[in-house]
Amino acid sequence: MTQPSSLSDLRGATDADGDFVDPRFVALEIARFLREGDTDSIRAFFETQELADVAAYLEELGTEDALTAMRLLRLHDQAELIAHLRPASQVTIATLMRRRELAALMSAMSHDERADLYKQLDEEAQEALLPALSKAEREDLRRLAAYEEWTVGSVMTSDYATLKPEMTSSQALEALRAQALEAETVYTAYIVDEAHRLIGVLELEDLLIARPRQRVGDIMDTDPVSIGADAAQEEAARLIARYDLIALPVLDGNGRLVGIVTADDAMDVAEQEATEDIHKGSTVGPMESSVGEASIFTLYRARIFWLVLLVFGNIFSGAGIAYFQQTIAAHLSLLFFLPLLIASGGNAGAQSATLMVRALATGDVRPADFGRLLAREVLIALGLGLTMAIAVSAIGLWRGGPEIALVVASAMVAIVLMGALFGMSLPFIFDRFNRDPAAASGPLVTSMADILGVMTYFTIAAALLDI
Amino acid sequence: MTQPSSLSDLRGATDADGDFVDPRFVALEIARFLREGDTDSIRAFFETQELADVAAYLEELGTEDALTAMRLLRLHDQAELIAHLRPASQVTIATLMRRRELAALMSAMSHDERADLYKQLDEEAQEALLPALSKAEREDLRRLAAYEEWTVGSVMTSDYATLKPEMTSSQALEALRAQALEAETVYTAYIVDEAHRLIGVLELEDLLIARPRQRVGDIMDTDPVSIGADAAQEEAARLIARYDLIALPVLDGNGRLVGIVTADDAMDVAEQEATEDIHKGSTVGPMESSVGEASIFTLYRARIFWLVLLVFGNIFSGAGIAYFQQTIAAHLSLLFFLPLLIASGGNAGAQSATLMVRALATGDVRPADFGRLLAREVLIALGLGLTMAIAVSAIGLWRGGPEIALVVASAMVAIVLMGALFGMSLPFIFDRFNRDPAAASGPLVTSMADILGVMTYFTIAAALLDI
Repeated sequence: MTQPSSLSDLRGATDADGDFVDPRFVALEIARFLREGDTDSIRAFFETQELADVAAYLEELGTEDALTAMRLLRLHDQAELIAHLRPASQVTIATLMRRRELAALMSAMSHDERADLYKQLDEEAQEALLPALSKAEREDLRRLAAYEEWTVGSVMTSDYATLKPEMTSSQALEALRAQALEAETVYTAYIVDEAHRLIGVLELEDLLIARPRQRVGDIMDTDPVSIGADAAQEEAARLIARYDLIALPVLDGNGRLVGIVTADDAMDVAEQEATEDIHKGSTVGPMESSVGEASIFTLYRARIFWLVLLVFGNIFSGAGIAYFQQTIAAHLSLLFFLPLLIASGGNAGAQSATLMVRALATGDVRPADFGRLLAREVLIALGLGLTMAIAVSAIGLWRGGPEIALVVASAMVAIVLMGALFGMSLPFIFDRFNRDPAAASGPLVTSMADILGVMTYFTIAAALLDI
Repeated sequence: MTQPSSLSDLRGATDADGDFVDPRFVALEIARFLREGDTDSIRAFFETQELADVAAYLEELGTEDALTAMRLLRLHDQAELIAHLRPASQVTIATLMRRRELAALMSAMSHDERADLYKQLDEEAQEALLPALSKAEREDLRRLAAYEEWTVGSVMTSDYATLKPEMTSSQALEALRAQALEAETVYTAYIVDEAHRLIGVLELEDLLIARPRQRVGDIMDTDPVSIGADAAQEEAARLIARYDLIALPVLDGNGRLVGIVTADDAMDVAEQEATEDIHKGSTVGPMESSVGEASIFTLYRARIFWLVLLVFGNIFSGAGIAYFQQTIAAHLSLLFFLPLLIASGGNAGAQSATLMVRALATGDVRPADFGRLLAREVLIALGLGLTMAIAVSAIGLWRGGPEIALVVASAMVAIVLMGALFGMSLPFIFDRFNRDPAAASGPLVTSMADILGVMTYFTIAAALLDI
């Protein structure tokens, strides 16, 4: 990376690997220009940048500097920018602002994003802020902030565009124009009756191609996809992906429109959910904060439960070994193959479990497919087990002769088969009992496969060698 | 679920769990109405359904029935519907169609989706189809089909809306109206010069709020986010998520606009990439087909490589055990704790690796954060190791007395610490050498942690017990 002579040289700059310039480097430059009082250069530089990138630079500045730099933007851009900051940074900056400034900023923010910020503030800051907001804003904030985490309500926004069914398409276009600055999106508009019940949805595209005198009520979709505010947020993401929606309307228990979830929020939700499933897949529990920012205790707490549980689970493997102590004492060379065999069962099982957990999560397979998939898994596992048995019997021949090779090879086939079938079935079993299939994690499957592996190996060895 | 008396009763029907009616059940009903020749009822039922759902029903019908049912829809809806079918079903239906019918359908399809279908057809079918298409369509098909899998080019579409910089905003609105039926989206329009180089992007929302005489060139974003056609498709998904875009323009090497990637395609790509990373996390290699549909051989091939490799990796653990054979023979009770200790190191390591792999993939942590995160990991791992040591020393006391308890507890702390630090570091090491961090999978980390675990345990045991 070459040293730029001015901020604007940084515009779109990439290093040798094609990665964007390290935001910390840009932040250093911004800090330098701030010290020199050259705010015009900073403002000009920000003009050339996407707000998401400006946010990344501000993250690397001290809070005072970040606020000073943020104030160089128009209020509307400030409102968009702060939403791109990490929650913790939003709070530190908001805390530094005067009450009126913060209230003005929050008025300009997306309703969902300001509710998220509001929830992060401590009670004192919340109470100081409320009187500076309008009554409608206060009520909206309280209402959105009341939804529980992980519900659709907690990710929806209430600044959607509405139309009336009796409007002509040209009137509707005019109405959307008037709502464009306030609404999160005007590409989908919602038609509600007097009780605020959703009676239709209209895409701006359909409005564009309608004849000027056609009425909204005649061209709207009267049977739109919608979701309840208390449903799980990942369900909203799934509907948006399935039906290629720009936004999904959210209804309360009485069919009244209370908000929308936009596609970009759905993408964030989907990413969050994938992260959670991935973590679960290695027995890491859910965390509120990002991994990069999480405290030592947060991570400790997310990890310790399953680790200790699995310690006790593995006692059974130890007990299995203890049970076969005599066989082992007579053939100590068997121990050489122990790690390899039990790891193979665990690995094959972890593969099978992971494939099924993910396929169930994305809807690629359904619980009803279990029988068909089990039959397929038997054949796959036999193929895998036989291949691995060939590999391991060569080592068996070399280490212990034909008898050991036979024991190890037959144990391998049996262990891989059992591990794979167990790993493949566990997610379906969890699903059957209404538990999250993602809990059928690699380490859980591995531990169970270990126990099966120890018992199988020594049982076969005892049968073939002792008699 | 109660038996519906007619197809329209199925509309939006859910079973007791709130899940939508099994598509196989709806398919049976459709087949019954087809046999009875009551196509009007089917057509009326389809009217009430989203096309993505109709596609799910057709998947469960025989190919002939599916085609007959599909023909009840308008051409435009047929074109949208077929894209919702699985690739294999698209091909079987397309193969059943007459050449002219297929050509008409493909003309009505999204450019990206018809290119995907075209690529799936066998060479004979491709050559039969081409003469029935227009010259522009043929060229577009060939061009889109030529991009390699996993590139941006392979997921982009060429039916984007364009504007000229000299148009007034009302002329531009008129131009978008004219393109609305053909274009994939009119919510973002692209402005190109004579050489088809991208010179600006304009959101329909900004066009709506512009004054009628303002020129496109004056209100467009002249510095839009874009991507190269040969970049990785996940990079496009990342940009769309980061900048909350509706569509991302794709440029060739000369800055010419060649296509766009839409947000809904980006969602599919992000899901696909997450699936691939999750699979990699348990050593399952990439597959072209879905897990539900994959053949036995496809799955065998995706799984066998790492399984065999790890067999050989685990030989080192066996060799470690063989090396300490005398210590073991003298204290056979040590074996009881072997599975538990090495599994603990592997589990802690898998947790650490998974956390880092995902955080690196989502940009939550950066390679440069390594030092800070390593320091944090030392403290977390010590906390985890000490907690697990307490748990295990109780078992040690019970099984073998205070000496064994001491050996087991100190081995636990050391093994968990090493496993966690190794698992945490491996993704960064892979990244440093330009390998995908996701390859630092659970099973790989577990196998390495096993070796460390065996050596550590018996070294500590030999030191504390033999002397």
